[in-house]
Amino acid sequence: MNDTFLKACRGEKTDYTPIWIMRQAGRYLPQYLEVRARGKGTFLDLCKDPARCTEVTLQPVDIFGMDAAILFSDILIPMEAMGLTLEFHEGKGPVFPDPIREQRDVDGLIIPDPEETMPFVLATIKLLRAELKVPLIGFSGAPFTLATYLIEGGSSKVFLETKKMMFRQPQLYHALLEKITRCTSLYLQAQARAGAQTLQIFDSWAGILAPCDYARFALPYVQTIISDLRRTTDVPIIYFANNGATLIEHTSTCGADVLGLDWRINIKDGVARVGDHAVQGNLDPLALFLPEKELQNRVRKLIDDARGARGHIFNLGHGVVPQTPPEQVKIVVDCVHEYSARG
Amino acid sequence: MNDTFLKACRGEKTDYTPIWIMRQAGRYLPQYLEVRARGKGTFLDLCKDPARCTEVTLQPVDIFGMDAAILFSDILIPMEAMGLTLEFHEGKGPVFPDPIREQRDVDGLIIPDPEETMPFVLATIKLLRAELKVPLIGFSGAPFTLATYLIEGGSSKVFLETKKMMFRQPQLYHALLEKITRCTSLYLQAQARAGAQTLQIFDSWAGILAPCDYARFALPYVQTIISDLRRTTDVPIIYFANNGATLIEHTSTCGADVLGLDWRINIKDGVARVGDHAVQGNLDPLALFLPEKELQNRVRKLIDDARGARGHIFNLGHGVVPQTPPEQVKIVVDCVHEYSARG
Repeated sequence: MNDTFLKACRGEKTDYTPIWIMRQAGRYLPQYLEVRARGKGTFLDLCKDPARCTEVTLQPVDIFGMDAAILFSDILIPMEAMGLTLEFHEGKGPVFPDPIREQRDVDGLIIPDPEETMPFVLATIKLLRAELKVPLIGFSGAPFTLATYLIEGGSSKVFLETKKMMFRQPQLYHALLEKITRCTSLYLQAQARAGAQTLQIFDSWAGILAPCDYARFALPYVQTIISDLRRTTDVPIIYFANNGATLIEHTSTCGADVLGLDWRINIKDGVARVGDHAVQGNLDPLALFLPEKELQNRVRKLIDDARGARGHIFNLGHGVVPQTPPEQVKIVVDCVHEYSARG
Repeated sequence: MNDTFLKACRGEKTDYTPIWIMRQAGRYLPQYLEVRARGKGTFLDLCKDPARCTEVTLQPVDIFGMDAAILFSDILIPMEAMGLTLEFHEGKGPVFPDPIREQRDVDGLIIPDPEETMPFVLATIKLLRAELKVPLIGFSGAPFTLATYLIEGGSSKVFLETKKMMFRQPQLYHALLEKITRCTSLYLQAQARAGAQTLQIFDSWAGILAPCDYARFALPYVQTIISDLRRTTDVPIIYFANNGATLIEHTSTCGADVLGLDWRINIKDGVARVGDHAVQGNLDPLALFLPEKELQNRVRKLIDDARGARGHIFNLGHGVVPQTPPEQVKIVVDCVHEYSARG
């Protein structure tokens, strides 16, 4: 197995900089769209079909030579398992028709047994491990990010309901977060048991919080999950707080091995501030629209700027967008491999 | 006249910390909604009616005792004056049905004479100056932010078209930005001539750019406008790059007197990084939903954290949201005045 990615996560010396990209199995790939069309079901149906999940997870590894695979799934799957109705509306994203607003809503949530309620995820992990020659990343959402969807009833712009609950009903907020945290902790442990070799926690909306609120309303739950994981597995843990440049002082205490950085921060500044962590990131996903030579120059500069890190996993600073030409992804992967191997 | 705000902008000693809040004339105020309903026209109609603009601009000053008034208008008004069709769609925000995508689109834009094309703005400024006992802030969008609306045809999430143009057709992008810059420069100069006593430049979308792209595709145009203004007026200039914590190294070279900070950064860190500038900000607009005592504690801490600044103008870190109870705004204004006066 190619364990370059795992070594970089642990801060060990590698022969080159490993790369994978967020949403690498996804809509920018014609091969993914083909599998999606073949099944005829919804996005959620795809997430629950281990054979097709395995197929789309393998695609970017086979096509581009990525150094890690990431389980094809959605961060909201375990929220559905908690007893909530989850829908995906075209052009609007995820919708929870019955948002969490009161104590009885929180009381109604169950802590699901992952083996019983999400066997398709664990089956996918097992199928993938039998096929893969690179490490498999399992993942979850971070409790704060998951809570925003439950409280808002879907995506949001200003997160009014979430912050209202935080600020005016902190007991209710914390009761909800504790349940989500317990669910997520069990879910990630089950992924590790099934064979996930790294676990990434996505805090997609952390960046809407002032640092003092992040420290109080988001970080403690990430710390709980990671300390639970440390007692039960030794897989490396990656934490990605999107738009989190002003939170690094706090995120660097979360307990993860690797901190993901979004594209808004110069990676050199990020490396200087993350302390003794490996970093993952952070090319602007839209930089994939640069002409070839400029794209390569930007990739090389990013690799050079990250040289001071305890470890560097090349990635985008956020998910690849569906309009991205796949050949541009190939340029980045090849450039990372070639340039970083020169040392 | 109460010139506390102007003194703070210039970094002079003040008896207390002045406050105004972004979007202080707006939908959270029943008095504003009344004026809006009375006119029966669209939002754009209101922007073009000096009598009603004057009325709504005065409201928050009279109701809360704000230390500055900000002209009621919209950053896209001069874009319409450049020859573009501008519409506001309910729930979707501004729409340009004919977005700028090609050289001929840029060629078709005119550099409007503000006196001829936007006389209602200048008339509003004159009416306001006759009424106000606090300074009047004029404003514009920053060229990059304005360009995103023109290129995308409205608001956006990932700004694909904007970045595609930047990265693949930089000549076209720069030609567009030069025209917007010239228009904005003339527009702000006309506002100063009409009586605006401070000018704020809103770069609402600066935060979507990686620092290297901000330095190349956004900052130079702000610098041009500010150096144009310095030759023609001595009013203080405020520059607000929203979500701009990672850009401060660059934004602090823009030439403004005051840098606005959004709520994502601890203001203490902001103050340490802005160099010899006054700062404006930066309470989370949603913190206005905190219970009274906690809200006051947060306001006091913010004032203390900003004490090292060359000057501090208290503000929110972004616009007040329409759902905000006006009495919460009153709590903040009173607390800022009382606590900061104690020294």
